[in-house]
Amino acid sequence: MFPINTLVPRAARLYSDRLAVWDGETKFSFAEVHARTCRLAGALAARGVRRGDRVGILDVNTHRYLEAYYACAHMGAVLLPLNARLSAREIDYVLNEAGGKAMLVAAPFFDVFEAARPKLASVETVLGWGGPLPPATDDYETAIANARPVSEPIAVDPDEISQIYYTSGTTGEPKGVCLTYGNMLTSAVDSIVGLGLSFADRWLHAAPMFHLVDAWSVWSFPMMGAPQICLAFDPERYLDIVHTARPTATGLPPTLINMVANHPRFDRYDLSSIRLVMYGGSPTPLGVLKSAMATIPTAYVHGYGITETSGITTLLRADEFCVDGPPEKVAITASAGLPVPNIELGVVDDDGRPVAPGTPGEVVVSGPRVMKEYWRRPDKTAEVLVDGRYHTGDVGYLDEAGRLYIVDRKKDMIITGGENVYPAEIESLLSTHPDVLEVAVIGVPDPHWGEAVKAVIVPRAGTDPDPEAIIAHCRGQIANYKIPKSVDFRTDPLPKTGPGKIAKRILRDPYWAAQDGKI
Amino acid sequence: MFPINTLVPRAARLYSDRLAVWDGETKFSFAEVHARTCRLAGALAARGVRRGDRVGILDVNTHRYLEAYYACAHMGAVLLPLNARLSAREIDYVLNEAGGKAMLVAAPFFDVFEAARPKLASVETVLGWGGPLPPATDDYETAIANARPVSEPIAVDPDEISQIYYTSGTTGEPKGVCLTYGNMLTSAVDSIVGLGLSFADRWLHAAPMFHLVDAWSVWSFPMMGAPQICLAFDPERYLDIVHTARPTATGLPPTLINMVANHPRFDRYDLSSIRLVMYGGSPTPLGVLKSAMATIPTAYVHGYGITETSGITTLLRADEFCVDGPPEKVAITASAGLPVPNIELGVVDDDGRPVAPGTPGEVVVSGPRVMKEYWRRPDKTAEVLVDGRYHTGDVGYLDEAGRLYIVDRKKDMIITGGENVYPAEIESLLSTHPDVLEVAVIGVPDPHWGEAVKAVIVPRAGTDPDPEAIIAHCRGQIANYKIPKSVDFRTDPLPKTGPGKIAKRILRDPYWAAQDGKI
Repeated sequence: MFPINTLVPRAARLYSDRLAVWDGETKFSFAEVHARTCRLAGALAARGVRRGDRVGILDVNTHRYLEAYYACAHMGAVLLPLNARLSAREIDYVLNEAGGKAMLVAAPFFDVFEAARPKLASVETVLGWGGPLPPATDDYETAIANARPVSEPIAVDPDEISQIYYTSGTTGEPKGVCLTYGNMLTSAVDSIVGLGLSFADRWLHAAPMFHLVDAWSVWSFPMMGAPQICLAFDPERYLDIVHTARPTATGLPPTLINMVANHPRFDRYDLSSIRLVMYGGSPTPLGVLKSAMATIPTAYVHGYGITETSGITTLLRADEFCVDGPPEKVAITASAGLPVPNIELGVVDDDGRPVAPGTPGEVVVSGPRVMKEYWRRPDKTAEVLVDGRYHTGDVGYLDEAGRLYIVDRKKDMIITGGENVYPAEIESLLSTHPDVLEVAVIGVPDPHWGEAVKAVIVPRAGTDPDPEAIIAHCRGQIANYKIPKSVDFRTDPLPKTGPGKIAKRILRDPYWAAQDGKI
Repeated sequence: MFPINTLVPRAARLYSDRLAVWDGETKFSFAEVHARTCRLAGALAARGVRRGDRVGILDVNTHRYLEAYYACAHMGAVLLPLNARLSAREIDYVLNEAGGKAMLVAAPFFDVFEAARPKLASVETVLGWGGPLPPATDDYETAIANARPVSEPIAVDPDEISQIYYTSGTTGEPKGVCLTYGNMLTSAVDSIVGLGLSFADRWLHAAPMFHLVDAWSVWSFPMMGAPQICLAFDPERYLDIVHTARPTATGLPPTLINMVANHPRFDRYDLSSIRLVMYGGSPTPLGVLKSAMATIPTAYVHGYGITETSGITTLLRADEFCVDGPPEKVAITASAGLPVPNIELGVVDDDGRPVAPGTPGEVVVSGPRVMKEYWRRPDKTAEVLVDGRYHTGDVGYLDEAGRLYIVDRKKDMIITGGENVYPAEIESLLSTHPDVLEVAVIGVPDPHWGEAVKAVIVPRAGTDPDPEAIIAHCRGQIANYKIPKSVDFRTDPLPKTGPGKIAKRILRDPYWAAQDGKI
């Protein structure tokens, strides 16, 4: 198949005047996006960026983010999308580890990037936009206006690195997931086929474009000649853009849909254009789903995405989504569904052997979607890539029909008295207690059990639950060995990693500080 | 991407109990299709068929046709789908040239195949079904029931030949178009993306599965986990299967849709499930399109397919289809549209240089969809494959938006007094004369003009037009040099090639018999 960096040039030829990007007041045709892409590639080339060089970007979802993806692929440079929530320290870490040569920075990130800048060893060029520029920063629009366009995309190898996504750990060492041109092409096709998208669709970038929860669409949509709509998420902006730009499909957690529903002017907007909402990762509580469906009655598609396997990995078909009906049908809605076409998926035991349906094990993935490596970390790569098979670190099981259910992260699993306990199950139960706002279940050292189950809870405002009430809530609902042996209460929100997951390692560390090692 | 011979095994794992094939009274799940595929591969292997061996098939659209596609790919054998209209002499030619080792034959083809059989040099095995078997023919069902299944698909190379389609010329030498596993995978993806198909679709095989006008769907649908419905076309069977099996999409010429509309029991059937009708090749007269739309009001998609470029090559989006509206919009409906994702298309002059929009030239195609070669005909391959670019022999032009309009076959073009004349234009005009049932325009030798334009016409029953009336019909409508200099009348239908096109070579040959060579 033609590589991804031919998609925009092709779209510029074939769909020249059709809408490609809608970003606030800005609309670009495919010809315009292509022209800006060629100019951005020229501006970067003039500043010494060559094939294989890493180019970082700090921005929310904008048309310039798309241009960065396209221009890097066009010239064979490697895009390094930085999580928009990184601290200056983290920006230093990632850019120095990846050896970023150039940076593209939007005004809202000038402060954090300038704080990071003194420690950056490799960055030679910074292009900025959207506000008064810091020193030694070139204006993006001036740079591309003056650039000599790179007219043709470079011929790339399918096994050549195209993008590096850093994992989102807030402690320890983030690793750079290296995805190739071949990975991303397959991901773009799989997403179209898996979601049933077509040229009649209009994608709304609601989830962040620095993450593959959304960024696969950057390639799928020009392949179809269909438009992309950019949104930096906020409930009112969401209402406005859906009403105005009429997107048909988006990726958005039901929790955010419910935020939208609570907006005071919700009723003034027409959201009927949306025919598909993909949401991902761990199961969403049923009440949240029901509420989202009442707000925006459309097809909901539950998926499971992994950066190391190039994005959307499994999907539950919309026709299996059921929040009102027989319990066995509702239970299927918790599933992440079936693998998309180029994903070979299995669940294995600790020896790497497939387990029977219904039995939890580690989810493993092989095939053309699996990343090439972690950037310059052969040790870490070897830990997860064994005979071409990627070990996700997620614990899940398959049902008889082959649907995947994600149980928990493998490293979050608690082993207490020889029993495996998956915190997600207990967290799900505790979240139904009326006084619980946030909850995390972790393992803490215990002289008798090895690990003991502990719940860390942020109570709702105005409530003051005691540990006994929390523990009593679990009795009869789950096996005794799963019931927390202790409960700690916090007033501050629990620490989060980049994409909004609770940072369990930060929570766990103080309890284990006195121990020799972690489990 | 995973090769096409993994699609059915994957579907059997993931969509095990879902409907895969509906053929009359027979319905098979994906698990059942896969099981029969493995058994057919085993039956063929037990009879000496090995990787790379050619396996022919003579059947209409049935579930066994699908099994033949799948079993050959499964074991790395090469399927050789034979045009169901071939004579015994043609069957001999094709099977001997291709060195067919095994044949799969349905009962309606026993007679023609037995007539061909004495001259077949390479065929060692024949599996038959559907009626009393001829001598030395094994029963298909018994053979697969007794076979030891081949459980896993063979690992194939993308550049390895998967299928050979013989071109349909009724004179001269049919050539075997060799398509690879890579060709067919790209074709399957392009067809999904180009047509906007999804897992919610159900494909109706209405056009013949021995031809790529339909056979790409054999791979696209298991990729999506969606069903295929088999039909040996006939108006009543069409009505019945659409009513019963509720297909959503099909490929069918508007002329056949109009045949359906004239069926006396048309009103008793519900055809509302059809959301998409693809029709192909040369422009269809507007009246026929309007009538089809009145019969089945759905999305009509005009396409241009070429066997040598693995099937669907360009498509006109349904939203550009217009039979009632401003003339410039209606004119677009005659276009074959834009290339699908993995087609690189151009229009070139006789020196191979691109021509300007609006200028006719030869249509050329490059990229991963282009065939590997003509079977064992390096001379013929070299004539059409130049620097990886396939010269289609079709004359067309592009409009400013890049849409393709097919004007005619290059070899049918007439050069008269130094002017290029495209017969299709004149045929289209003459077909509007009330007395004309069939018409072909050809070039005949002329001492003064080099070639002279001649119309060969079959008048409608009960009419007796004279040549002057025919010629007068053209005056003022087309340039004088395009107006036929002579008209011949016939009473028999004009000779046709396999897919229903008029066999111009047969028409032309008698006029040129006395000449040294053809133009």
